Amino acid sequence: MSDTTSTGPDHGVIEGAPSVPPPVGEVAGAPRLSPAEEARTLLARTNVAALASMSDGGEPWASLITYGALEDGSPVLCLSQMAEHGRNVARDPRASVMITAPELPADPLAVGRVTLAGRCLRPADARETATARAAHLAAVPAASVYVDFSDFALWILRVERVRWVGGYGRMDSASAEAFAAARADPVAGAAAGAIAHLNADHADALLTIARALGGYPDASAALCTGLDRYGIDLSLDTARGRAPTRVAWSAPLSQASALRSASVELTRRAQSLLGVEGR
Amino acid sequence: MSDTTSTGPDHGVIEGAPSVPPPVGEVAGAPRLSPAEEARTLLARTNVAALASMSDGGEPWASLITYGALEDGSPVLCLSQMAEHGRNVARDPRASVMITAPELPADPLAVGRVTLAGRCLRPADARETATARAAHLAAVPAASVYVDFSDFALWILRVERVRWVGGYGRMDSASAEAFAAARADPVAGAAAGAIAHLNADHADALLTIARALGGYPDASAALCTGLDRYGIDLSLDTARGRAPTRVAWSAPLSQASALRSASVELTRRAQSLLGVEGR
Repeated sequence: MSDTTSTGPDHGVIEGAPSVPPPVGEVAGAPRLSPAEEARTLLARTNVAALASMSDGGEPWASLITYGALEDGSPVLCLSQMAEHGRNVARDPRASVMITAPELPADPLAVGRVTLAGRCLRPADARETATARAAHLAAVPAASVYVDFSDFALWILRVERVRWVGGYGRMDSASAEAFAAARADPVAGAAAGAIAHLNADHADALLTIARALGGYPDASAALCTGLDRYGIDLSLDTARGRAPTRVAWSAPLSQASALRSASVELTRRAQSLLGVEGR
Repeated sequence: MSDTTSTGPDHGVIEGAPSVPPPVGEVAGAPRLSPAEEARTLLARTNVAALASMSDGGEPWASLITYGALEDGSPVLCLSQMAEHGRNVARDPRASVMITAPELPADPLAVGRVTLAGRCLRPADARETATARAAHLAAVPAASVYVDFSDFALWILRVERVRWVGGYGRMDSASAEAFAAARADPVAGAAAGAIAHLNADHADALLTIARALGGYPDASAALCTGLDRYGIDLSLDTARGRAPTRVAWSAPLSQASALRSASVELTRRAQSLLGVEGR
């Protein structure tokens, strides 16, 4: 990753750790998803999470739950009173859910995850019950079998605290307000496919982008390692060593279908800057 | 599944629910993995789990952890004091971990999972530290990078309570003693591949087994839906409807490599009982 949002202490200088060659040209740069946007993106990518609730004896109890989400990102759970976690939140509303990105990398601690902590409350009235029920069913179609069983109830986790971890060294907190106001990255679901396609079929274009806009005119190869609505992450080979960089799209993307035209536009702009003919 | 280990209350009779045709022949049957064996099997299948710890304000805090395990099944965590969960267990040892089977089915609540609750304690002495360190590194090779950083510490979750959920209607508790004494199913890692192979290439053999040993001489098709060291689960088509059954291997398997000979033996025994020629 080309930067980090970690604000905490470090493990200290590691002797012999390789240094990263700095850019020698101008870098177009790109904002990153905010911690609140990262949190909302993880929330939107799956429907399964771990719940920490308070057991009868006062011990923290981890269990599996499914969820949908309200517009403001509040997770909607559907829990049975026959299950320990259902009785737990009815007794004590304090709870948190931890959501993990659906793709688990080889090193599990490199995975993105977020903890949303707050209070599990029943919907306030019939209208909110209907909204919560619809949100849960939209995300968890299988719940239609049991959502109306008398032992099941809908719970809305009112989020008070958000802690996002993007992998090693990328982590930050978000306020409840920022979380509620943020929206999921519309590109997230298509990112893995787009990255594979760019690396397989457009290595030349990635290298041109890296040289013209990524600050590394001396790059000899470029690999796309990530992308989101704001920009594209590249890992570059140079004679000075391997370096990461990040380049912004000309404007933030509002839907996944805009990825193709944004990639083409970025490539043409880079070609024009380098005076290279497009293919 | 042909039976259930649920001992709790039911959701009540569901009007119009389809009935399952009973066996009309003798069923060889098979024990199932005990809840303690199911728990140990889940523990052995992966190295990533959700931790519920107690946050500074007394709220349950869900986070992602990696783990190895001691011989008695105690999970060994390696947590940074820079992370909230590391500070949590240092302040309050009460914690639980929830482990989910690596293969997530289309309906997430059908997945096997187990919650292990107890207390996170530091290794008692240098010898236990070495054992715990080795157990963690064996399961989480990437931890070799940070296990000796000064902010990281090893924690052993001393398991006091075990709650296993095998999916809808399959759930039970295990005592701490049973959990410590049980061993993981040695066949679990190879089960998915073996099931796919049996269904793709040995449908005839499965049907013969179902007819001769599964109690359904009137079965017209058989699909393998699961297997473990004790036996094989089948889903059968009959003129009376679809039925599950389960058949024991001649003896419990002690390693995955025994699956092939056990399947052959079971098929030959079934063929002999039916007077059918083997292929």
